[in-house]
Amino acid sequence: MAKSIYFTLGIHNHQPVGNFESVFEDAYKKSYLPFIELLEAHPAIKISMHYSGPLWDYLLKKHEEWIRKLAALVKRSQVEILTGAYYEPILPNIHDHDKIGQIKLLTRTIEKYTGYKAKGMWTAERVWEPQLAKPMAEGGVKYTILDEAHFRYAGLEPSGIFGYYITEEQGLPLYIFPISYQLRHLIPFKEPEKTLEFLASAATEEGNLIAVFADDGEKFGVWPGTYKTSFEEKWLERFFKMLEENSSWIKLITFSEYMEKHPPAGRIYLPTASYFEMLEWALPAPAGKEFQKVLAEVKAAGKWEEYENFLKGGFWRNFLAKYPEANNMQKKALLVSHKVEKMKGVTKHDALKELWQGQCNCGYWHGVFGGIYLNHIRTAVYEHLIAAERIADNETHSEKPFIHAETIDFDLDGKSEILINSDKINLYLGPHQGGYLFELDYKIKPANLCNSLSRREEIYHKKIRELAGMEEKKDEGLVSIHEMVKSKEKGLEKFLNYDWYRRVSLLDHFFHPSVTLESFRDTLYREQGDFVNQLYQYDLKNDESKAELTLSRNGHVWIDESFVPVRVEKKINLTSGEPAFTVEYKIKNLSENTIKLWFSPEFNFSFLSGNDKNSFYICGGLKTPLDSTAALENIKDFAVKDGIRNIDINLGMEIPCSLWMLPLETISQSEAGFERVYQASTLLPNWKFTLGKNKEWQVKIKIFIQ
Amino acid sequence: MAKSIYFTLGIHNHQPVGNFESVFEDAYKKSYLPFIELLEAHPAIKISMHYSGPLWDYLLKKHEEWIRKLAALVKRSQVEILTGAYYEPILPNIHDHDKIGQIKLLTRTIEKYTGYKAKGMWTAERVWEPQLAKPMAEGGVKYTILDEAHFRYAGLEPSGIFGYYITEEQGLPLYIFPISYQLRHLIPFKEPEKTLEFLASAATEEGNLIAVFADDGEKFGVWPGTYKTSFEEKWLERFFKMLEENSSWIKLITFSEYMEKHPPAGRIYLPTASYFEMLEWALPAPAGKEFQKVLAEVKAAGKWEEYENFLKGGFWRNFLAKYPEANNMQKKALLVSHKVEKMKGVTKHDALKELWQGQCNCGYWHGVFGGIYLNHIRTAVYEHLIAAERIADNETHSEKPFIHAETIDFDLDGKSEILINSDKINLYLGPHQGGYLFELDYKIKPANLCNSLSRREEIYHKKIRELAGMEEKKDEGLVSIHEMVKSKEKGLEKFLNYDWYRRVSLLDHFFHPSVTLESFRDTLYREQGDFVNQLYQYDLKNDESKAELTLSRNGHVWIDESFVPVRVEKKINLTSGEPAFTVEYKIKNLSENTIKLWFSPEFNFSFLSGNDKNSFYICGGLKTPLDSTAALENIKDFAVKDGIRNIDINLGMEIPCSLWMLPLETISQSEAGFERVYQASTLLPNWKFTLGKNKEWQVKIKIFIQ
Repeated sequence: MAKSIYFTLGIHNHQPVGNFESVFEDAYKKSYLPFIELLEAHPAIKISMHYSGPLWDYLLKKHEEWIRKLAALVKRSQVEILTGAYYEPILPNIHDHDKIGQIKLLTRTIEKYTGYKAKGMWTAERVWEPQLAKPMAEGGVKYTILDEAHFRYAGLEPSGIFGYYITEEQGLPLYIFPISYQLRHLIPFKEPEKTLEFLASAATEEGNLIAVFADDGEKFGVWPGTYKTSFEEKWLERFFKMLEENSSWIKLITFSEYMEKHPPAGRIYLPTASYFEMLEWALPAPAGKEFQKVLAEVKAAGKWEEYENFLKGGFWRNFLAKYPEANNMQKKALLVSHKVEKMKGVTKHDALKELWQGQCNCGYWHGVFGGIYLNHIRTAVYEHLIAAERIADNETHSEKPFIHAETIDFDLDGKSEILINSDKINLYLGPHQGGYLFELDYKIKPANLCNSLSRREEIYHKKIRELAGMEEKKDEGLVSIHEMVKSKEKGLEKFLNYDWYRRVSLLDHFFHPSVTLESFRDTLYREQGDFVNQLYQYDLKNDESKAELTLSRNGHVWIDESFVPVRVEKKINLTSGEPAFTVEYKIKNLSENTIKLWFSPEFNFSFLSGNDKNSFYICGGLKTPLDSTAALENIKDFAVKDGIRNIDINLGMEIPCSLWMLPLETISQSEAGFERVYQASTLLPNWKFTLGKNKEWQVKIKIFIQ
Repeated sequence: MAKSIYFTLGIHNHQPVGNFESVFEDAYKKSYLPFIELLEAHPAIKISMHYSGPLWDYLLKKHEEWIRKLAALVKRSQVEILTGAYYEPILPNIHDHDKIGQIKLLTRTIEKYTGYKAKGMWTAERVWEPQLAKPMAEGGVKYTILDEAHFRYAGLEPSGIFGYYITEEQGLPLYIFPISYQLRHLIPFKEPEKTLEFLASAATEEGNLIAVFADDGEKFGVWPGTYKTSFEEKWLERFFKMLEENSSWIKLITFSEYMEKHPPAGRIYLPTASYFEMLEWALPAPAGKEFQKVLAEVKAAGKWEEYENFLKGGFWRNFLAKYPEANNMQKKALLVSHKVEKMKGVTKHDALKELWQGQCNCGYWHGVFGGIYLNHIRTAVYEHLIAAERIADNETHSEKPFIHAETIDFDLDGKSEILINSDKINLYLGPHQGGYLFELDYKIKPANLCNSLSRREEIYHKKIRELAGMEEKKDEGLVSIHEMVKSKEKGLEKFLNYDWYRRVSLLDHFFHPSVTLESFRDTLYREQGDFVNQLYQYDLKNDESKAELTLSRNGHVWIDESFVPVRVEKKINLTSGEPAFTVEYKIKNLSENTIKLWFSPEFNFSFLSGNDKNSFYICGGLKTPLDSTAALENIKDFAVKDGIRNIDINLGMEIPCSLWMLPLETISQSEAGFERVYQASTLLPNWKFTLGKNKEWQVKIKIFIQ
């Protein structure tokens, strides 16, 4: 009896919320459209396709022909459409009601435009936790597709991946197909014949097994070099032809069709997992280094195949521990979700759409793609979250001006933060971290103006240091994205400075006389105070139209080899209806001696670009780009113009200051190599003054946004 | 500045639901009581204690002095009591409403008897999944205690374990303390000074770190050899004295007190995990063997410390895949929980108590303790689950006789089972598995009479084979329970036979003439039919007082080197109000030839003991023990008397049969060594007959339970 095997192809297409329209359009032209056109020409090629919500939104609006073509392929039973959570959130990152709501939205959208009732779902980044079977089932999902790795971590033998399995949570069932790791590395990176060989090796006389390929559609046309290979050099067409020519034993089938014909291969429970590389990225940097060492040893010893089922990296959710900025977004999304969930009116639908866009996964983590390092992606997250919050707040407060202040553990670090919300702005402050202002939401043109990203060590930074001085090698041929080491710019190693505190605003520095703008930038300066990230006391007074928050710390400044007691008090005032707040600083010498101080509260304001031609600092008549590094003197009024979002931030200092400005820039990897990314513009108004025993110095700063 | 460290001791005391009262009493005398008395004598020894619900139930009933002593220790702030889910279920194994309900019940009980409002909980077997933070928080829990392993799998550096962490699920926070792996292996197995050395190595000048020991209280007095060391040789007293003498730098503290004084060390998300060994046990046997090989290699290469954070076994829930019997119990518990959840009346409280007892973890898995291999523990699980179901059914059906039949995927294997419930018995049948009767609940004296356990390969069986013929070595001194290799009986290797189908009832065999009782027992016999575990068609007719289920399969019997088509039909009838059912077998020759058949439907009835003096088979005037191996001839009426539970099963055969009887016995490990465990009594009524073309043979079997 001849051997045969079922083969299913699953394609996942996605672009993040907030990605540039040109990227969507480019991906459509280079990948999504030619892929569909090739399917039209090859009716025997059965396939399962997933398009994430951002693509549905974009393509329905811009490319009416796309849905026509797709629906036709569905109608002739060539394509099965997969649902998913609409805006592609990491599922454990969001509330259950959002998980279910987002799944149902995509399922409804698919049905509306293609008539197809989707049964299976794509799980974003294959980030799996065992309890997900429940919200998935409650969202109407019958099956999903995860990596071979997930199954191996449960102890499944390698031969077991040619089938599908049943799992359940609290009695709610879900079927799961394992994606072949080997196929994911053959397609489209090796010649089609290699896939043929792989399938031949797995085919059986019974012919009832199934091999599953499922991966990003962007591997066909969008990833560097793949448009040339996939379409110009016709890899994909050759692949389809090969499948057609071997249809006697390679039986193309959709997931659903296979499920109708064959029972599950067994019961399985999958531990928390994702694809192998993701778990590696999720480790904190020190553990990540140790893991790389172990992997290198095991591979060098030829033990990889023997060990791989038991060697496992970290856990996705620890991106929230690794990057406080990811945690900030995620906790903001939880908070906004609570507000939206309580809504009763007709605008709830709009609020949900905004909220769910703000849950799109891409900005919440970092691996080989930029992820959280991409300023514009994080900006989009906050834009949508704050827009959702504004809609919910408008309902709660009947569109009237308001102030609402509360003390809660917003970021779930075990300590309280202070959240002051008004109809115009939100100020989120952390008394336990220097009384910092870690979120500054401008609700009118929704944006978090403190959406910066601090500079941290990444495991791959050592490669940049290693490469420093070496000539950049030209990328030769098509290499797997994991192997690529190249920099988009020379000299990146000079930017590898790391911050010891979170680079947000109202960070109270006392500098040593030796500090320069450059030594500050390179974190080689001497901090003399213990205020930047230490505990502040607080006193919050508020009513429905005003809030006054006083943050204070009796700390120390290191002067002439001794700790001198100094008190810093910052009083923040804001009023409903006004997109402005004031900060009154009082610095008091608590010692017996006269002391000289150099005080500088740090601000980090985030904008989309450091060198946009319509965005700049304005001081006097002078305009300078947002990534300028400069020290100005005798400044009272200062403005920052965001020409992209059309937001102005105006700072008014009661006492003229020296003003340092510099860009906050990170070094990260992306699919195109190492890159420097502008994250925020740092402003350091600073004052030098002398204080006698018990004397106090004070300054008032007004921040006005429009 | 002198170095110091906080040190907390957590003790978890537990006995399974269904364990013998003598074991409870023995554990109390040898461990729980002397431990408390020692605490009374050492008021400086602060400690956190957890007693599981079965202990609370037993000790409140039998040892009023225990609660008096405990409450006094709580009152003088020496002891902090931990809550937990009352009957110690593996949390992911049960519904969220049961998780929360069980936690609240233990918290209420603790408060009622000690006045203490428990803040922390013991997590059964430290089986953690990230979503548990939510039901725990909803149950009023502030913190729990998990293994160092959990934290390392998240990428925490080894030095990070001397603190506690915050995690959250969907915004609900939970604090978690890591238990030191080293302390768990020092206490009480090494001299107290070793603990001192360990603490000294972790102490710091700041003195703000905490070292956590937490483990089973039974390690002090109940585990083999530990009563002698802990109390007779006064290990525990020496340990306490050592702590008292070093109180200047070893600061004893409870979990709650430490939390009040010190903030969490950080945010963390823990992947699915348990203690290291549990994850090893949870692997399927083939993967388990591979894992052991990898571990041995890594240890031999001196790489253990380098690799251990990344080397991980399986996932607890796969015990449900590994043992269909565990899955059966767990799915039964889910089903009963649904029924109980819907209750409105005053008996709901009783039903919940029964249900929750049936969720006690010990019978659902297997590691170094007997676990699922312990017949009496599984018996208790079903006793309580069926009792809960009866209470719920009584409410639904107003205590009237009823029949309710349904076709649902009860065991969540993707295929439908047939559940016939009456006021007296439940019959659960699986058409896709030979139409087997896999659960037979007698509701009057609540018991599942098909609660058998099939014989399967366990990874440690190879040790028994290796030991075979070797003299049993005398256990020298106190060794860790993981290192013990001893058998409670010689010649166990002869019992290492494995079943190829689940040993329940109505399993339709066709034997080859060469089959003997012994070859059947040793699974060395020749099965001639394809009925035992293959697909049956079914037809279910039922109303409120009667049910008739016809299961049939047109299969084959291998006769004279060819497959002969044969039809087996079994019609099952039962009536409300009657603790009885009939099975009418029809065997039809579908071939053109006359054939000789040897047919035997297998029954496995489970009892608590194979050699109880009041339990026996009764046939004619003859009484034989339930673990008899015998072949009887010409049997029409046959009874099985369970003298422990006082249940009789009567079988009446319409046509006299030959009857084989044999015990079903497994070989498993327990803390005391390898042991043979009686699981069920196998009955094989069998008939030899000749059938001409299209001829049919039939027999009716009546089963009556009282």
